[in-house]
Amino acid sequence: MYTVVDHQFMSQALAQAQKALYLSTPNPRVGCVITKDGQVIGSGYTQKAGGNHAEVQALADAKANGFDVSGSTIYVTLEPCSHEGRTPPCSDALIAAKPAVVIAAMLDPNPLVNGRGLERLKAAGIDVRCGLMESEARALNPGFISRMTRGLPWVRMKIAASLDGKTALANGTSQWITGPEARSDGHHWRAQACAILTGAGTVKEDDPTLNVRDVVTERQPWKIVIDSRLETPLDAKLFKNLHQSGVIVVCADMDSEVSQTKAKALQGLGVEVIAMANAYGKVDLAKLLRYLAKERSMNEIHIESGYKLNGSLLRENGVDELLLYYAPFLLGDGIGMANIGTLTELNQRQDWQIIDHTVLGQDLRVRLAKPSPKL
Amino acid sequence: MYTVVDHQFMSQALAQAQKALYLSTPNPRVGCVITKDGQVIGSGYTQKAGGNHAEVQALADAKANGFDVSGSTIYVTLEPCSHEGRTPPCSDALIAAKPAVVIAAMLDPNPLVNGRGLERLKAAGIDVRCGLMESEARALNPGFISRMTRGLPWVRMKIAASLDGKTALANGTSQWITGPEARSDGHHWRAQACAILTGAGTVKEDDPTLNVRDVVTERQPWKIVIDSRLETPLDAKLFKNLHQSGVIVVCADMDSEVSQTKAKALQGLGVEVIAMANAYGKVDLAKLLRYLAKERSMNEIHIESGYKLNGSLLRENGVDELLLYYAPFLLGDGIGMANIGTLTELNQRQDWQIIDHTVLGQDLRVRLAKPSPKL
Repeated sequence: MYTVVDHQFMSQALAQAQKALYLSTPNPRVGCVITKDGQVIGSGYTQKAGGNHAEVQALADAKANGFDVSGSTIYVTLEPCSHEGRTPPCSDALIAAKPAVVIAAMLDPNPLVNGRGLERLKAAGIDVRCGLMESEARALNPGFISRMTRGLPWVRMKIAASLDGKTALANGTSQWITGPEARSDGHHWRAQACAILTGAGTVKEDDPTLNVRDVVTERQPWKIVIDSRLETPLDAKLFKNLHQSGVIVVCADMDSEVSQTKAKALQGLGVEVIAMANAYGKVDLAKLLRYLAKERSMNEIHIESGYKLNGSLLRENGVDELLLYYAPFLLGDGIGMANIGTLTELNQRQDWQIIDHTVLGQDLRVRLAKPSPKL
Repeated sequence: MYTVVDHQFMSQALAQAQKALYLSTPNPRVGCVITKDGQVIGSGYTQKAGGNHAEVQALADAKANGFDVSGSTIYVTLEPCSHEGRTPPCSDALIAAKPAVVIAAMLDPNPLVNGRGLERLKAAGIDVRCGLMESEARALNPGFISRMTRGLPWVRMKIAASLDGKTALANGTSQWITGPEARSDGHHWRAQACAILTGAGTVKEDDPTLNVRDVVTERQPWKIVIDSRLETPLDAKLFKNLHQSGVIVVCADMDSEVSQTKAKALQGLGVEVIAMANAYGKVDLAKLLRYLAKERSMNEIHIESGYKLNGSLLRENGVDELLLYYAPFLLGDGIGMANIGTLTELNQRQDWQIIDHTVLGQDLRVRLAKPSPKL
């Protein structure tokens, strides 16, 4: 059905989408390539939220290059939108440009679109096809697809550990388990996320900034601290530079006088404080994840936390992907990856599936996902 | 210095040597290819101990094929031996066959040879070269090289664990952590070893046979049980079929009446019992390894043991290679890979270097060696 040339142009559209990796959230990363007579005459990718979508960028690029788009073949990694969002629908812009053919890699999982964009193009007499390199296109937007289809963000948990699964020595020493290449790779994953989530314990012990540093990005993710009893110190490093990236502290109670005082102090710094308790007086993590997707339009959440919170998130089945870095040594007694409790039978475990494995410097990175992620 | 054709023929010689992988111990795995006018006229590899070496096999093969070896070019993965062992020196057999050129991948690390084999060939007027694909040739014989140069076997420790480094649940459940592909791969490594070493604890808990099953082999490795106080039960599975593979039980004391009684019972089964104590009344592992190399001509030892003995061997710096299998799940509380104690600073660790990493079924295999193995 598709030619080698179709694959080549769609690959170029995917490479365009890749440029939106750190940028476009909450919009999906989309790339678009416009071709005529076997030549690319325009290309583009989704801009920062509120800016142009990929199709509009590519049309403008073709125009700037002096080309007429009518009769062209357009490759786009996601179905053009059909609804008025912050920008007008892309399908209308495409129809006006009169291409002969539009090939999309996948349908828009947004229930407001989901086929309607392509229908509009078809109704306008354009030859429309869908499904070319779909799995590559889906892999670009696990978070957007998850939010649209499950009402949940895609949750990626990063853990750096020794070969025997220790993230720190028994005395707490943990800097640095992995080498510079692995740490730098970690920033690439931070940069993709809408928010980096950690626990108050990690903030108190390690005082991380949780900034994206080792890659170039226009956008810093939000930072979220799970802090049931509002114990994060006011002078924590991640409360600096709030103009660059906002911080949300999630507690379990804001009714008591003590918590109100603490919350006010945090709010005074410019930090958002929200309460979301479960029946045990802890933060309701499942509810929080749903809130982050539905109310805050967050696609991907990057977890960088410790033994306890890692364990809670895993036990509540809140994690979609494991991003593990193994340093090439054993540490013996020490702090484990995640408090998932004591199993009494092997079949009580949660199974994962290896997505990829690669050496970074001296370390090994292993990525795993749930065997059948419901995307 | 070497042509593409030289590399091709040496690759064929290495492939011959590979056929001796499970077979030739305590002799090194060696392959030999005889060529004339760009054609292979004979090839061979080291046979079972006491049988022909690779060169003699290849010469016989050429003869059986009706070829005259005089004037040929011979590729051999290890320098031909110059000393009378269980078989006459291969260098003499080669000289008698009058080849024009002999190319060896590496010198024989055996101090009785180490260049003398090639010298003899040179003195007989043969054009001799050495060093083609040396690292590939060395990788075939880590154990033989180690025994010849260090007086120690090459010690490979196999551990199958979860992603968080647990080899069993807290209640001891461990069958099966890894899947069939990983377990089958484990037999490939068992088959290469001269002996499989375990501890009395593992025998008591898991009662393994420690046989090679999933690969075809003419030779079963020895089995060695570290059993300071001679507590291995007499009905343990690994004491069956002693005609196929001998078992050595290593204890720390054979002087007391109790141990003499126990030792006699084991000897009655056909098991060898030796005592080798350190100052703490435990088995002296360093001394044992030296004994296995020097007195028993063992090249490669394959460790399949548990938390305690793994820890002792690692702490005493007795392990050269880690063969780790990770199953794709977390197990939480449970039994760790090795009791290496409590470090107080990260720089007290032993560093390793990743040799390779590969997926086997659902599992990940990672092999590591000491950063500069003294081979």
